[in-house]
Amino acid sequence: MSRKSGFDARGLDAKGFDAWADAIRTGSRRDLARGITLVESNRIEDVEPAQELLERLIPFSGSADRIGISGMPGAGKSTFIEMLGRILAEDGHKVAVLAVDPSSPVSGGSILGDKTRMADLSRMDQVFVRPSPAGRTPGGVARKTREAMLLCEAAGYDTVLVETVGAGQSEWRVSSMTDLFIVLMLPNAGDVLQGIKRGILEMSDIILVNKADGTRREAAAEAAEQYRNALQITDVDGSGTTVRTCSALDRASVNECRRVASEMLSTRKEDSSFDEKRRTQLRQWIRSLAEDSLLQLLEDDRGFPGMLDELEREISEGKTTPLRAGLSLRNRIIREIGRWNSKSGLPL
Amino acid sequence: MSRKSGFDARGLDAKGFDAWADAIRTGSRRDLARGITLVESNRIEDVEPAQELLERLIPFSGSADRIGISGMPGAGKSTFIEMLGRILAEDGHKVAVLAVDPSSPVSGGSILGDKTRMADLSRMDQVFVRPSPAGRTPGGVARKTREAMLLCEAAGYDTVLVETVGAGQSEWRVSSMTDLFIVLMLPNAGDVLQGIKRGILEMSDIILVNKADGTRREAAAEAAEQYRNALQITDVDGSGTTVRTCSALDRASVNECRRVASEMLSTRKEDSSFDEKRRTQLRQWIRSLAEDSLLQLLEDDRGFPGMLDELEREISEGKTTPLRAGLSLRNRIIREIGRWNSKSGLPL
Repeated sequence: MSRKSGFDARGLDAKGFDAWADAIRTGSRRDLARGITLVESNRIEDVEPAQELLERLIPFSGSADRIGISGMPGAGKSTFIEMLGRILAEDGHKVAVLAVDPSSPVSGGSILGDKTRMADLSRMDQVFVRPSPAGRTPGGVARKTREAMLLCEAAGYDTVLVETVGAGQSEWRVSSMTDLFIVLMLPNAGDVLQGIKRGILEMSDIILVNKADGTRREAAAEAAEQYRNALQITDVDGSGTTVRTCSALDRASVNECRRVASEMLSTRKEDSSFDEKRRTQLRQWIRSLAEDSLLQLLEDDRGFPGMLDELEREISEGKTTPLRAGLSLRNRIIREIGRWNSKSGLPL
Repeated sequence: MSRKSGFDARGLDAKGFDAWADAIRTGSRRDLARGITLVESNRIEDVEPAQELLERLIPFSGSADRIGISGMPGAGKSTFIEMLGRILAEDGHKVAVLAVDPSSPVSGGSILGDKTRMADLSRMDQVFVRPSPAGRTPGGVARKTREAMLLCEAAGYDTVLVETVGAGQSEWRVSSMTDLFIVLMLPNAGDVLQGIKRGILEMSDIILVNKADGTRREAAAEAAEQYRNALQITDVDGSGTTVRTCSALDRASVNECRRVASEMLSTRKEDSSFDEKRRTQLRQWIRSLAEDSLLQLLEDDRGFPGMLDELEREISEGKTTPLRAGLSLRNRIIREIGRWNSKSGLPL
């Protein structure tokens, strides 16, 4: 296989995977990109090769700072990431930027301005910007982002920024794969309420009220105060949560945010909480993969959704009960599994 | 079997279950209470008999109005339920009161005053008050409450009030088994915030700011206004949510709440939304029973939690990947299931 054409998972043997892993570890951006494409693939035949590659690289992963960055569209995430990425890179760090949501600015976004700025960042030698995967399920996408993160770490990136929009489950997923979770908010009253509803207080390590510039400086300070009050009133476990104002356009302001984040990480690395969190995250990841793959059996097209109509009718006729119906649904799934046994073991 | 000793599931044959079901349907409170004890039992050998009884009664269930009532401890739930139950019973309704949480006032609570009031209500001929089950998991308790509800309906109770505390998953569970969900709130600023965080806006059909009496009348009106604002600002799907003030001590006030609730239910029964909701709830219930029983396999003591340590080590050594670890956890579970095959089919 010629290096020029890059690696292709099809028909690759153990030596081939060894070479691919080496190429990634020694800094080939192209091979890293292809590796991420492999782990992001939705094709069933790519699952095993992706795991072959991952096995070779995971032992070299884990030394990066993993930073999650969230915020609703319009909160200024891409501007913030652009500035933060540049500051880190100019300071000698190798920075990887990943995104969980297909709609995020990293993947192209909808605003030309964002696109251009991310493009600027991605041209830097020290920076690797990866558009988000187009996965089927948000959970699946999060898994892929997580695997992509491990590849980036093995490739020597010491800081991974994982971007997500502030909505639904994706925030929770990103916070469960990162060491530090930063949420950008706008200085609007409605956003404070939305933020509280989203569970921002419990989830985030740093709440940044962004766009604290020009005429909005005062509104931002006010919103920050409202978050601090909410932290006190609701008495959540937000003892570690810091609220700051920020202007993503202002280098000094973003640098100050970076300082706060670094300090938090240093403190946690000194005591055992950093390592403990990583360990808990890994165990929860394995567990949730097992859970997902169990529950996915219920999503399978092979007749289960159709069973519901039948079971519903049987219940109303007194032929079965909801519990029995639930169990027979499960039992049928388990019985069917043996028949699906394919090369990769079980349906993913 | 003598009627005096009541029914005992042990060794009961089909005819015995028929007789038990008949006794419940013809209004024997004692046999209803025993039936609920059976469906609430945590003993594995009681599962099948409970389902036998349920099968005979489900065809006669479903005609009651199912009303969920939630609120944090201190919000005045038991006072409200006492008053509402009395109003309904005096109006000729047969009312069953169930509770999902072991800590709820229905089950005895911690305050003597509550206890006494519930005892008053339960002495009424038209009212059946059932303490909450002491189940192992909140999900399990919810299932039992749901089954108990079906028994009460088959026994001719035309209104079932299901009480739960305003915390955690139990609110969601009760809202998913009732036709109408009422949440009692206190007129405090902090409670408004907590309510919003808990997702009250989306979940409830009626938000009652309780204790709108004496000096708190104004604060209650203010809190109600804050909820109405929050409904507008956050633009949630709360178009059907009504916010009212209420004094649970005042018969006229509770009667007005009852009027609002009745009107909501009537409107929904006229269009198809009432039936549709019931159907969706049943399907989701079956599905979640199947899901729970699948996931419960992961909780089983037979070695799976211990596997995590092993898998964690293998991942760090590059012998496996998180995805493979998750799948092997799942596969091991599925392989083991065949060996557990007991009389009742599969572990519950």
